[in-house]
Amino acid sequence: MNKTIGILGGMGPMATCDLMKKIIEQTDASCDQEHIRICVDSNTNIPDRTKAILYGGENPVPEMVKSALYLQSMGADVIIMPCNTAHFFLEDVQKFVNVPILNMPMETAIACKKKGVKSAAILATEGTINSGIYHKALKSQEICPVIPNAEEQKIITSIIYDFVKAGKPHPYERKLAQMISRFTSLGVEALILGCTELPIAFSQTETAIALIDPTLILAAAAIQFVKNETKLAQ
Amino acid sequence: MNKTIGILGGMGPMATCDLMKKIIEQTDASCDQEHIRICVDSNTNIPDRTKAILYGGENPVPEMVKSALYLQSMGADVIIMPCNTAHFFLEDVQKFVNVPILNMPMETAIACKKKGVKSAAILATEGTINSGIYHKALKSQEICPVIPNAEEQKIITSIIYDFVKAGKPHPYERKLAQMISRFTSLGVEALILGCTELPIAFSQTETAIALIDPTLILAAAAIQFVKNETKLAQ
Repeated sequence: MNKTIGILGGMGPMATCDLMKKIIEQTDASCDQEHIRICVDSNTNIPDRTKAILYGGENPVPEMVKSALYLQSMGADVIIMPCNTAHFFLEDVQKFVNVPILNMPMETAIACKKKGVKSAAILATEGTINSGIYHKALKSQEICPVIPNAEEQKIITSIIYDFVKAGKPHPYERKLAQMISRFTSLGVEALILGCTELPIAFSQTETAIALIDPTLILAAAAIQFVKNETKLAQ
Repeated sequence: MNKTIGILGGMGPMATCDLMKKIIEQTDASCDQEHIRICVDSNTNIPDRTKAILYGGENPVPEMVKSALYLQSMGADVIIMPCNTAHFFLEDVQKFVNVPILNMPMETAIACKKKGVKSAAILATEGTINSGIYHKALKSQEICPVIPNAEEQKIITSIIYDFVKAGKPHPYERKLAQMISRFTSLGVEALILGCTELPIAFSQTETAIALIDPTLILAAAAIQFVKNETKLAQ
């Protein structure tokens, strides 16, 4: 039987689909049956993570746990979440399930370290930035975290909420170029697209700086995880 | 709580992702929480459907039923399958679950009828063609079904199995154009891309004839189904 990756999704729906696609594309398979089984709960009943962290909005943990338990009951060998902000609640969800949940910011920091990156900028929701999850992960790998200033953050937030989540192309090409050039002048070597909606927004942008897509790294880490499990079982 | 669409997938994995994307793109929503919940079992343990129909290969029904039961237990209000050939087994799977499974060939035939199509060509696996599922669906809507000849079928089969399922672009642009021109001379008004891998292959092709994508029709039908359910419940 094929090993199973569980996706605790719906945060957002298109990012969930994007993560699934990246797993399939990075899997070495020539027919359906050689692919990894993927179970998904794109649970759009999960309340907004950023609102919960910043403004005391509804706690997303109960709905996240419900989805994690469904994935566990379907036989998931590992669980991944296509939402950076949601990782603020990872430990609270992990308590309720035996299946390991991979940590996207930590996997990303490790991948940056392997590339020799010493300073990385974090583009993300205010929830992710304020939660400090990327700061902690990067510092654990001795990488210096840099964040957008207030004006730049407003643009990033608008791209995520007003455009990508609404399925529309954003009009901020020039502002993004200015921000990237400011980062470069600060010695930033890599740009972490630390919200799963951002790789979609940045697909229209050409940059001289290395773009790090945590979704791609998470997909690769999950594939590696189930491959190692398969080897251990043999 | 949001209504739930269950996708009995893995047939194939990329087509599963494509169906999910089409549901999200066709949903009128401006934030995560306004989207429909989608549960997916991309179950790559399901044996090849065409082999089962044509050559007495392993029966896919037990694994399909297992996935359908998982989706039912997750609260799916409706189940859809992103594999035309799998619809040969629809009734056998439906027996085991209470959740209605929508019929993609039938939804497609109804959509063709609405467009005023009187003759449609079916591009599909040999399993789908030989099973007669599209013939039956089209005839029920008084549409004349046309199928590829033996040489053309070989090309369609190769595109599906050797290229799309393996994630590679196909080299048959010219052969497809010749086939389409033969169909047109027979009075065919629409080309049904009756294998979920084909819309991916045809995205690189320009045609003068109407292309019918059953995946898109199925996504719309599932959205409509849960919308009507929501209205009835109010």
